[in-house]
Amino acid sequence: MRNKLSKVLIPKVNFRKFTEFASFKETIGQAPGTLIYTGNKNETDVQVEIYTYNKEEIQKKGGKSLTEIAGVSSENRVNWLNIDGLHNIKLINEVGKTYGLNSLVLEDILHVDQRPKMEDFGDYMFFTIKMFYNNPTGELEFEHISFVLTNKSVISFQERPKDVFDLIRDRLTNSYGKIREKGADYLFYRFIDTIIDHYFIVLDKIAEKIELLEDEVMENATTKTLQKLQGVRKELIYLRRSIYPLRESINTILKSESPLLNADTERYFMDIYDHTIQVIESLETYRDLQSGIMDLYMNTASNRMNEIMKVLTIMSSIFIPLTFIAGIYGMNFQHMPELGYTWAYPAVWILMVGLVIFMLILFKKRKWL
Amino acid sequence: MRNKLSKVLIPKVNFRKFTEFASFKETIGQAPGTLIYTGNKNETDVQVEIYTYNKEEIQKKGGKSLTEIAGVSSENRVNWLNIDGLHNIKLINEVGKTYGLNSLVLEDILHVDQRPKMEDFGDYMFFTIKMFYNNPTGELEFEHISFVLTNKSVISFQERPKDVFDLIRDRLTNSYGKIREKGADYLFYRFIDTIIDHYFIVLDKIAEKIELLEDEVMENATTKTLQKLQGVRKELIYLRRSIYPLRESINTILKSESPLLNADTERYFMDIYDHTIQVIESLETYRDLQSGIMDLYMNTASNRMNEIMKVLTIMSSIFIPLTFIAGIYGMNFQHMPELGYTWAYPAVWILMVGLVIFMLILFKKRKWL
Amino acid sequence: MRNKLSKVLIPKVNFRKFTEFASFKETIGQAPGTLIYTGNKNETDVQVEIYTYNKEEIQKKGGKSLTEIAGVSSENRVNWLNIDGLHNIKLINEVGKTYGLNSLVLEDILHVDQRPKMEDFGDYMFFTIKMFYNNPTGELEFEHISFVLTNKSVISFQERPKDVFDLIRDRLTNSYGKIREKGADYLFYRFIDTIIDHYFIVLDKIAEKIELLEDEVMENATTKTLQKLQGVRKELIYLRRSIYPLRESINTILKSESPLLNADTERYFMDIYDHTIQVIESLETYRDLQSGIMDLYMNTASNRMNEIMKVLTIMSSIFIPLTFIAGIYGMNFQHMPELGYTWAYPAVWILMVGLVIFMLILFKKRKWL
Amino acid sequence: MRNKLSKVLIPKVNFRKFTEFASFKETIGQAPGTLIYTGNKNETDVQVEIYTYNKEEIQKKGGKSLTEIAGVSSENRVNWLNIDGLHNIKLINEVGKTYGLNSLVLEDILHVDQRPKMEDFGDYMFFTIKMFYNNPTGELEFEHISFVLTNKSVISFQERPKDVFDLIRDRLTNSYGKIREKGADYLFYRFIDTIIDHYFIVLDKIAEKIELLEDEVMENATTKTLQKLQGVRKELIYLRRSIYPLRESINTILKSESPLLNADTERYFMDIYDHTIQVIESLETYRDLQSGIMDLYMNTASNRMNEIMKVLTIMSSIFIPLTFIAGIYGMNFQHMPELGYTWAYPAVWILMVGLVIFMLILFKKRKWL
Amino acid sequence: MRNKLSKVLIPKVNFRKFTEFASFKETIGQAPGTLIYTGNKNETDVQVEIYTYNKEEIQKKGGKSLTEIAGVSSENRVNWLNIDGLHNIKLINEVGKTYGLNSLVLEDILHVDQRPKMEDFGDYMFFTIKMFYNNPTGELEFEHISFVLTNKSVISFQERPKDVFDLIRDRLTNSYGKIREKGADYLFYRFIDTIIDHYFIVLDKIAEKIELLEDEVMENATTKTLQKLQGVRKELIYLRRSIYPLRESINTILKSESPLLNADTERYFMDIYDHTIQVIESLETYRDLQSGIMDLYMNTASNRMNEIMKVLTIMSSIFIPLTFIAGIYGMNFQHMPELGYTWAYPAVWILMVGLVIFMLILFKKRKWL
Repeated sequence: MRNKLSKVLIPKVNFRKFTEFASFKETIGQAPGTLIYTGNKNETDVQVEIYTYNKEEIQKKGGKSLTEIAGVSSENRVNWLNIDGLHNIKLINEVGKTYGLNSLVLEDILHVDQRPKMEDFGDYMFFTIKMFYNNPTGELEFEHISFVLTNKSVISFQERPKDVFDLIRDRLTNSYGKIREKGADYLFYRFIDTIIDHYFIVLDKIAEKIELLEDEVMENATTKTLQKLQGVRKELIYLRRSIYPLRESINTILKSESPLLNADTERYFMDIYDHTIQVIESLETYRDLQSGIMDLYMNTASNRMNEIMKVLTIMSSIFIPLTFIAGIYGMNFQHMPELGYTWAYPAVWILMVGLVIFMLILFKKRKWL
Repeated sequence: MRNKLSKVLIPKVNFRKFTEFASFKETIGQAPGTLIYTGNKNETDVQVEIYTYNKEEIQKKGGKSLTEIAGVSSENRVNWLNIDGLHNIKLINEVGKTYGLNSLVLEDILHVDQRPKMEDFGDYMFFTIKMFYNNPTGELEFEHISFVLTNKSVISFQERPKDVFDLIRDRLTNSYGKIREKGADYLFYRFIDTIIDHYFIVLDKIAEKIELLEDEVMENATTKTLQKLQGVRKELIYLRRSIYPLRESINTILKSESPLLNADTERYFMDIYDHTIQVIESLETYRDLQSGIMDLYMNTASNRMNEIMKVLTIMSSIFIPLTFIAGIYGMNFQHMPELGYTWAYPAVWILMVGLVIFMLILFKKRKWL
Repeated sequence: MRNKLSKVLIPKVNFRKFTEFASFKETIGQAPGTLIYTGNKNETDVQVEIYTYNKEEIQKKGGKSLTEIAGVSSENRVNWLNIDGLHNIKLINEVGKTYGLNSLVLEDILHVDQRPKMEDFGDYMFFTIKMFYNNPTGELEFEHISFVLTNKSVISFQERPKDVFDLIRDRLTNSYGKIREKGADYLFYRFIDTIIDHYFIVLDKIAEKIELLEDEVMENATTKTLQKLQGVRKELIYLRRSIYPLRESINTILKSESPLLNADTERYFMDIYDHTIQVIESLETYRDLQSGIMDLYMNTASNRMNEIMKVLTIMSSIFIPLTFIAGIYGMNFQHMPELGYTWAYPAVWILMVGLVIFMLILFKKRKWL
Repeated sequence: MRNKLSKVLIPKVNFRKFTEFASFKETIGQAPGTLIYTGNKNETDVQVEIYTYNKEEIQKKGGKSLTEIAGVSSENRVNWLNIDGLHNIKLINEVGKTYGLNSLVLEDILHVDQRPKMEDFGDYMFFTIKMFYNNPTGELEFEHISFVLTNKSVISFQERPKDVFDLIRDRLTNSYGKIREKGADYLFYRFIDTIIDHYFIVLDKIAEKIELLEDEVMENATTKTLQKLQGVRKELIYLRRSIYPLRESINTILKSESPLLNADTERYFMDIYDHTIQVIESLETYRDLQSGIMDLYMNTASNRMNEIMKVLTIMSSIFIPLTFIAGIYGMNFQHMPELGYTWAYPAVWILMVGLVIFMLILFKKRKWL
Repeated sequence: MRNKLSKVLIPKVNFRKFTEFASFKETIGQAPGTLIYTGNKNETDVQVEIYTYNKEEIQKKGGKSLTEIAGVSSENRVNWLNIDGLHNIKLINEVGKTYGLNSLVLEDILHVDQRPKMEDFGDYMFFTIKMFYNNPTGELEFEHISFVLTNKSVISFQERPKDVFDLIRDRLTNSYGKIREKGADYLFYRFIDTIIDHYFIVLDKIAEKIELLEDEVMENATTKTLQKLQGVRKELIYLRRSIYPLRESINTILKSESPLLNADTERYFMDIYDHTIQVIESLETYRDLQSGIMDLYMNTASNRMNEIMKVLTIMSSIFIPLTFIAGIYGMNFQHMPELGYTWAYPAVWILMVGLVIFMLILFKKRKWL
């Protein structure tokens, strides 16, 4: 079902992306709630879309500002407001005012390196999470996604238009399954579930790389292999850092007893919690595997060195004495009686061959051959 | 009682099996409870069998569908419904409907990489666990097994027909011991107990391998040894990952105070809990041992290298100066007075032998010989 | 936005500074509360300044003693008293008496190696923290800063005049934002927030170093690289030691339920708590990265050694037998029939070239070339 | 008081003994409480002895079965029933019936690899522990010992007759101290106390070994040293595994509030608890020390290798150019004008000596000499 | 203020002292409370001294037994009874009887390897701690000190007369500070505080050593350096073992709510608790640093080896082919046309020099020069 990758690329984890603290410089000393987008600003335009639906009907509208999408009926309906792109601070501010969001929430939406967290503000709930995917060249990328869950609405904030929610859009539009029959909390659950399901794809990719690297180490390790191993390690470090706090966040949802969540949605969140634990356990397992392969690499390299040393030692040990003997009879002393004997030359040959045989036996006994 | 294995095979942990996340791709975006079997589908047919018994009587029926096994009297009896093979989703669905199981439970039954868990649904209890065994070639294999315990029934779901419950079947049929006198909860306990007892066999196999590998490292380590050590490490990692959550699951049973469990069955589950702890502690011990042997390997290899280097150094250090001396008197200068002296040649020999003796003493003093 | 550093300096963590326990010698056996400044005394003069403000007005006064700055109206105002320099013990004592501070608090203010802590004394709250910054030469420096929060005042104690609070001074003076509208607890929050924001800059610098060092290891590692890696490690150790206890301190504030803190300030402290966790997680991540690069360094060095050994082995293995052959025919035996044959010399050449080709093929097969 | 061991033997930890899971194979599928002795069966006969005493009197009887020792008056007396040897399952079963013990208890008594645990059954208490001692050849051995404490009796189960309780027998018989004045719980405490005191002797032995190994590593390390270090490591792993759960067991006794334990015995158990912690802390310390010595070994070996390489390099570097020069003037070209000059030979000598001096200075500067 | 040590001595941690379990052999099987001193007995005489004071008066008496110091008025006064030397068991017993101490307490006073602990006996409190100091030769030594705090008295038990309490004696006698105004609990606090303050001096010494060792590793590492590093590691292991339990002990004091402690003394104990945490954190930091330097050492040594190998490789690689060429033309074949050409000899020189230049360029390109 799955084909072997032809080779493992050296992963180019975009390190700066993960450590984009520089942006903080701009915010230092600023009052809390001063909105500054800390991500990459040269993105395409911000896009806004709204879905409002109930069991019978669904309405969809898209645009570039809140006013463009205004006018959809929302009575007795569930609303999903989706913002693609975070660099239009005015728009974010507008959303914040419309829905009465705390300024700290808006700050967290814009800080792309905010760790996953869940905060209950009574009449709305704020949830932020990292989305991971491999881009076409196999590099690991992540996106900062935030959700606000109110009584009747889910607002989602993303960095880039491209997202993983198309399947949900499709289900909403075509009313597959029970998604249209349920409330905003169920939609909210589906978003998180979809994101966490994608973690498994990313993990699967890493499992594949680890497996290939193990083969590579056993068969044909090079310095590149080492750098790939280090790359996998970095990916695992970043994933762990981004996913670990999620456990706590989802646990907070489970324990929140918020009226925003229906009783029957709780079991779904328990399921998500279970998946998160499984992701974290897999990450730990992969780290263990990675470090095992690192050890294997080191020991394999050391073995190969021993092999090389052995060959050198054997060659040298055999020829050094022979060369010495040849040197002896290359001396130009006038009084070297051996030089005159007819049998001397063959005798030296016999001596030399004997020496070689003796040495080979010795090395055999020492298990060097 | 136990014979030494002639050799340790390089364990071929079926890595993909353990990381079969690819299947998740199919489930992403699906509504929760969408049933997709994530295991290997090219198995033999699904088989269903039912045992219904009380102290006096036992009835058994087998077949390929629920209808084939229908019609056994179940009044005042304990029922054991066993499903071998999970790829017939229609059947699983049917079972789910008949027994009123939650769709998330059915999902967990089919996801073969679901971590061990226990969930109490009030009128039934769901328990999933991994079964481990070594296949005939010594490879470690696992199977995903789920149980549903209701008031009067135990339903077991397995991936493959071959299982470890034959002894229980035998005892049921022949009414050995008190198994026929007790309720469904006792039968449920016996299943889990049997599976965990099998863990000890798997652990024993690993202990054996570790012991042999330690001997191998001390006596005759090769690159193969290294790969075997890595194999054992991988087995331990996988086992830990699969067994660790079990501790929590069984603890959940102990604390559940479910009416499905009789008070006197509780002590049996405490016994199981105790065994689980012992398995986990053994796993930790074996990891410690494995990593100790890895260190031993590394140091032994490094020692051997030092040995080789020493030989090379001694050979070179002794012969290099001798060859130089021979070279000196191989020069063709017309005015080399030594060449003409009669005693020069024996003198050079004396010089050379003296040099060798001096060097040997020196090396002896440095403890290189 | 950020330029690559041309090179990573070997960080000169001022080790003694971090371990300035020597000063304790002076305090041993002293009654608790005996005030001894444990920092560096050859600083500039102590400077005192006071800001008192409400929404409408702000008054500022500076000087070298409490009497110089006396006489500012403080009714219905928030006061910020700032002490720059801790070596004037008489002044510190005076402040202590004026505000009724416990002698243990004064001791903690003066011990520059006091770990971060928070203590609630009912009518005032004591908080001490480390401030980190990179000095112009890139070295990591820290300063011990203490705060006392009373009902209407914040008193800050610093080691050196230069500080990071200029932006706050500016905002106070020009009444930017809501800072002038809020109480002493908000001012207190802004100080801590500013300090923790600076941690991110320091972390960013370290992230940059780690990234450059990774490149350096992959491309052109030297012993200097090793020392830089060790330097980064030391920085991380010191930062962790200084920042880790902060988590607990801020948690203590959150749980204190002190009347000194307004209910709406609490969410700000939760925000700070969140940032502290993020800093700590980053530190852990960087340690992981640093140790990964250390491994990479070690393995890269070992690889390079193998390369060198390979070249040596190949050269020796090829030429040692050739030189031996040349030695054979350099012997001066009178009866060496080969010497007289016309084709002998070219034959020897053919033999030698054949040997070289044979060896090259052999090495090719062993993947040494 | 303690003499240095002349040498550290390579510890032969009886590995199979510690991992005697094979026996489980026999028990799999068996009903719980099926009694199978999992230890070594070729022991001497089972021996039974009973002590019954009060302050005034003591009676002792020994034999091979319960009937042989029957008939001792036990009214108002404390009884100690001691079973040496566990392979007579009939006897164990009889004891179980006489004292009304749960079948799971009997199972735990017979499973020699049962981890330490304490279980409170209301009218009796079950406690199992490992006893460690060094056999005459210095090997670490352990024995599985179980105790049952009832209101008036202590029953002890041992694998082998030889035990550490002779001092207690002596005290009982001669009524030393207060042992005869106190109840069964005090006797029970004395047994555990004696066993844990023996742990310190075993630890002391290990401390001694570690110390000697450290000296050996610093002075004269060989491959044997490595294997001894590994042996110590294995001993520590096994001890930790066997002693760690004890902490919890004794804590369970402390918290049990069982009527079987007098209030004043509790402090004695707190003392035991304290000792157990001390044993565990010592084990951790010794592991730290062992791993430190392992590092020391590795680095010392690596240092020695560097030494050897240095000698080889110096020898080669000095003689290789000299031999080359000699080779030059050994060439047989007819037109080599130098060969005819009278001063050429001494000039070559001067050149050579100069080269040697130059090289020695160079190596001196590089700190290789 | 602090001068650099000229060199770091190899610390001679008195290992046996730390592991003086042998003494336990004597106590095994003994009834609890059997008093056996487990320390070194060849000390000077036991010395006893008593201070009794209130705000107005102080009385002091010294001697060799309790009777010698009897007769000091103690009404309304605080008493400090100090016992120097623990080998006079009769005396200890006498003290125990006079003050009504539990026999287990007396046992703990005499066991010099008892880990730090605090026990509350209602009318008195028992506290035991380790005192550390560097002896004149720089070795780390420790002493086992116990305290009993009753309502009006502090009794201190030390192994040796020399102690760190002279400053307290001085303050008591001269009534410096408030020590004479306060109760026995304050005196008790001052003792513990003084001992913990001394920990900082010991830590400071270790910090100094670590710093010097880091320099040594970077500049001029030898095998001695390695042994010093191992010595520091051992010191840190022992300190951690002895100080870690202290955290818990002092926490027990804080939570004891004993009437023996005044409410205002509590804050002093919180201060001590804080210092203990700081000591423990420093120990962790130093271990981190020590292990970092160990890594540095290993890598530096490996780097140096690479350097040496490079030189050897370059020398060999250059001269081996040249020597071969010289060997060729040293052969004695009669038909070697080159030998007769006038330009052959210079041609060979040109060839050789060309070869050297070619090789140097090659090595330059490979960055080996």
